[in-house]
Amino acid sequence: MSPASRYTYLGPEGTFTEAAIRTLPEAATRELIPMVSVPAALDAVRGGEAAGALVPIENSVEGGVTATIDELAAGEALMIYREVVLPISFALLVRPGTRLEEIKTVTGHPVAQPQVRRWLARHLPNVTWESAASNADGARLVQEGRYDAAFAGEFAAATYGLEALVSDIHDAENAETRFVLVGRPARPPAPTGTDKTSVVFWLTENHPGALLDLLQEYASRGVNMMRIESRPTGEGIGQYCFSVDCEGHIQDRRVADALMGLQRLSRKVRFLGSYPRADRQAPTVRAGTTDEAFSTAADWVMRCMDGRG
Amino acid sequence: MSPASRYTYLGPEGTFTEAAIRTLPEAATRELIPMVSVPAALDAVRGGEAAGALVPIENSVEGGVTATIDELAAGEALMIYREVVLPISFALLVRPGTRLEEIKTVTGHPVAQPQVRRWLARHLPNVTWESAASNADGARLVQEGRYDAAFAGEFAAATYGLEALVSDIHDAENAETRFVLVGRPARPPAPTGTDKTSVVFWLTENHPGALLDLLQEYASRGVNMMRIESRPTGEGIGQYCFSVDCEGHIQDRRVADALMGLQRLSRKVRFLGSYPRADRQAPTVRAGTTDEAFSTAADWVMRCMDGRG
Amino acid sequence: MSPASRYTYLGPEGTFTEAAIRTLPEAATRELIPMVSVPAALDAVRGGEAAGALVPIENSVEGGVTATIDELAAGEALMIYREVVLPISFALLVRPGTRLEEIKTVTGHPVAQPQVRRWLARHLPNVTWESAASNADGARLVQEGRYDAAFAGEFAAATYGLEALVSDIHDAENAETRFVLVGRPARPPAPTGTDKTSVVFWLTENHPGALLDLLQEYASRGVNMMRIESRPTGEGIGQYCFSVDCEGHIQDRRVADALMGLQRLSRKVRFLGSYPRADRQAPTVRAGTTDEAFSTAADWVMRCMDGRG
Amino acid sequence: MSPASRYTYLGPEGTFTEAAIRTLPEAATRELIPMVSVPAALDAVRGGEAAGALVPIENSVEGGVTATIDELAAGEALMIYREVVLPISFALLVRPGTRLEEIKTVTGHPVAQPQVRRWLARHLPNVTWESAASNADGARLVQEGRYDAAFAGEFAAATYGLEALVSDIHDAENAETRFVLVGRPARPPAPTGTDKTSVVFWLTENHPGALLDLLQEYASRGVNMMRIESRPTGEGIGQYCFSVDCEGHIQDRRVADALMGLQRLSRKVRFLGSYPRADRQAPTVRAGTTDEAFSTAADWVMRCMDGRG
Repeated sequence: MSPASRYTYLGPEGTFTEAAIRTLPEAATRELIPMVSVPAALDAVRGGEAAGALVPIENSVEGGVTATIDELAAGEALMIYREVVLPISFALLVRPGTRLEEIKTVTGHPVAQPQVRRWLARHLPNVTWESAASNADGARLVQEGRYDAAFAGEFAAATYGLEALVSDIHDAENAETRFVLVGRPARPPAPTGTDKTSVVFWLTENHPGALLDLLQEYASRGVNMMRIESRPTGEGIGQYCFSVDCEGHIQDRRVADALMGLQRLSRKVRFLGSYPRADRQAPTVRAGTTDEAFSTAADWVMRCMDGRG
Repeated sequence: MSPASRYTYLGPEGTFTEAAIRTLPEAATRELIPMVSVPAALDAVRGGEAAGALVPIENSVEGGVTATIDELAAGEALMIYREVVLPISFALLVRPGTRLEEIKTVTGHPVAQPQVRRWLARHLPNVTWESAASNADGARLVQEGRYDAAFAGEFAAATYGLEALVSDIHDAENAETRFVLVGRPARPPAPTGTDKTSVVFWLTENHPGALLDLLQEYASRGVNMMRIESRPTGEGIGQYCFSVDCEGHIQDRRVADALMGLQRLSRKVRFLGSYPRADRQAPTVRAGTTDEAFSTAADWVMRCMDGRG
Repeated sequence: MSPASRYTYLGPEGTFTEAAIRTLPEAATRELIPMVSVPAALDAVRGGEAAGALVPIENSVEGGVTATIDELAAGEALMIYREVVLPISFALLVRPGTRLEEIKTVTGHPVAQPQVRRWLARHLPNVTWESAASNADGARLVQEGRYDAAFAGEFAAATYGLEALVSDIHDAENAETRFVLVGRPARPPAPTGTDKTSVVFWLTENHPGALLDLLQEYASRGVNMMRIESRPTGEGIGQYCFSVDCEGHIQDRRVADALMGLQRLSRKVRFLGSYPRADRQAPTVRAGTTDEAFSTAADWVMRCMDGRG
Repeated sequence: MSPASRYTYLGPEGTFTEAAIRTLPEAATRELIPMVSVPAALDAVRGGEAAGALVPIENSVEGGVTATIDELAAGEALMIYREVVLPISFALLVRPGTRLEEIKTVTGHPVAQPQVRRWLARHLPNVTWESAASNADGARLVQEGRYDAAFAGEFAAATYGLEALVSDIHDAENAETRFVLVGRPARPPAPTGTDKTSVVFWLTENHPGALLDLLQEYASRGVNMMRIESRPTGEGIGQYCFSVDCEGHIQDRRVADALMGLQRLSRKVRFLGSYPRADRQAPTVRAGTTDEAFSTAADWVMRCMDGRG
């Protein structure tokens, strides 16, 4: 297949990220290529070897989240075109025939461990846990006989010739992971009415209130922030950039206006895309912040300039 | 003369307002008409009987200040085109030949009294003060023999056949009054680099922070407020509008942008003009708030919308 | 009578201020002394010659408002102990027997003029208006035969042997004037649940946002501002102090906390008193700003310091 | 040894976290126990089996950072008593005698990969990378002959009988990881003048500006934020708590005052400790925010309450 029909994702096969990419309508007609890391998945897009990359960005059970945020902030620009939210629950995968009482060793990604801890304490209080490089790797190590059981997505069982002894294990209710489909910069998808907009910005100065001034650019236009995360810039401890998702689309006047404010007042800002929200929840638009309110205000100022205010 | 060559002012003749209007370059070629009150002076402009009106707006020794602010906020729209700042000092006017020790009664506008109080206590501790309707009226009452002396501008002496027994009386250092030249709405004078912009706005709601939100519209664009005054709206005690002067001209992008914010977030806003500052002091323009910064930000958002951010 | 039983007020007799002072329960047992000006009324209190002074502070039809604000901000400290709100309406006072159609000249305080303008235009379109130093002075001048009629409070008729030809004249609905009873500093009256607190503060620096920072001290504690007025400090045009009334009593934790913030962040702040609101309207107290919330927060921080957070 | 002399850390042996814990003065006299995960390390402290736990909290090359933040926010309360900042650079570890040109496969923690990517592209462009569960695990797999080389801290060489073929590999300049020493709640260490204070708070409501209001509590007291991170609360995507470090010690009045504000205005706040900054950089204390300024303000309000303001 050509690069245009190729998507990369954070591998290996059998992880939650693969499950997420398979929920995309176009997945059936794409070549899906697992990559060793988030940077590798994204670099394939940057290099033109793939049209898109699906990577976890929030609350992952596979790791990779901060790598995603950092990669989107640095290097050649990329953009987010879609998000996928996947409920997370684990299966306890074993070689066919293994019984619960025979399990002495379990494995899984380190990030999975706290999410199954309470289940383990209750049902397998005496097993030994050892970490694997990914949940899928853990499954492979069970296949190879190195461990008795692995925590992984139930979908990984088939890949590694294992069976799910227990399903739907998750200590926290409503555990979810959010993934994003990333591509090279292009015109964002058209507004749907339930969109979000992602940026990353760097503060001009490190004074009390510098961050506040930038967040104010959102708040003063009634633009709700959905996520804010500080990330070290790599310029030393204490130097941060901020990764922020807000409600709305860059074609919404209140969002465009807030972004202009960010651009003026920050050291640097990178637009990471406007794209449909997975939860399709409509934003509350405050009085004075509709597109019409912005048009009316701009017209009024024009009239004032002409002495017809 | 035609209405176009007629200016009204807060009378009567012989007050500081007349002195102020005579500082205007065009005063020599205008018919200058004293009016009984600020509303009367402004109504003559509204009615087309005069091209402009000069009225005190700040720190007056003649009264009329709140009347001016209220009149500009209500009724048919007017605009400010120029400001005049006049140092204020009083002369003690007497009938020719009167000596200081003969003075038993003095008069003047009530607002003048606190400004000459310390002088009176030192030099005429035993005189009786009675109020007059204006400083000029006080001078007239001295001419008529009703009082021995009046505090007024030295320029009033000639009008009323009096002489200035003492000059340059003012308890406060740097006492000044600011006057504005008001006309019917038209295109504001071109930016000079040292301008100010006046508006009056009404809060949408009376919640803690409603005013703050509007002042934030100035501050977030680095636009310095020069004066803020709350005025009752006439809708009952506790209902206010705000009269605000800020640095800059409506053609400055940061000012236009702030005004748009005010328009969106307030119940009502009235543009009262952009005009040269009397003190010709240049504003400090903060990084990220120059016209160029606004253009760059608008261009950037446009490019983001096109996928070229 | 002794100074302790003496109240001064902004005179002369027959003005709205006299009407206001007579509404005080203790007025019957006090010697009420009209003074020539607000400063004179307040100085009598400062000098120990009177226990209190009643002066207009807001929306006056007699002038004196800015004088009151400025006097409370400067000189020896004074405090507000009570407020009186008086509905304002004018009577047209004439010498007994005068008929409406005989009136050719009217007088009144300049501030009264705009409040009766519409009435005049409808009922006496051809009369000549001349200003008087106070509404009461206007009445006196009618008594003396100098004018045909005066606008003043109806209560002034008796004093000057006049009769009210027309009553209840006021262009604006709900016209009111607020007066304050001022005394030397002492412990404020106990909280009533519907109080207000007055201060005046001076900004440390004149930068964009300096005022905002101080107003934020109110807003962040949910303390509603009721009035804000900028006043020139007398240090030159462009230098202001701010006179602010807010809901609540200094013994309310949220108010005390806000005042501490003002004290820290302003160049100077003067406490002008906590006293019952005339309108007895209870404030909305936002979650997290009750006295209990402040106590809980202080306790929590103490426990954190002890490692029991 | 007794639990009191036992410290746990995020294992296994040979990772950067072990290197960090060995920089503590008391490390020589403590039993240092590697744990399989951050939760396991912290639970040992909660359960009383260890006196402290050293875990990475920022910019880790071992993962575990968000686990640390989430663990400190949830479950039984813990506190931070110290921080350790370690410069991060990798060594390429091989079995003794291996030459660079013989290396066909390399391994390491997934988070290490982006940090050595540029080095790999230049010096070993054709090797195959496979991920390990930790850098130390990678070293063990090289020891076992499964891979030719591993990226890990140079200190890991001895543990696994390997040698460092190349040292000081790090794509980013100034790469550092910050670790914290965590214990059960107790009185924080005394202020040193260069301290930081950590909290985690939950927003009361998810409205535009809710976060802003809380950050304002820091900014309005001149308290500089050093780190802010949003973390999902586990109540579903879109629900966050905020992990914030600020300059100063809870015994600094400005910090205590800001914490009180947070406590009042947030749904919940957890104090995570005041402890010395690793960089010993003194904070800038803004005018009006010194301990003395707070005392003066409190005294002033007390005097006002007594009528001696």
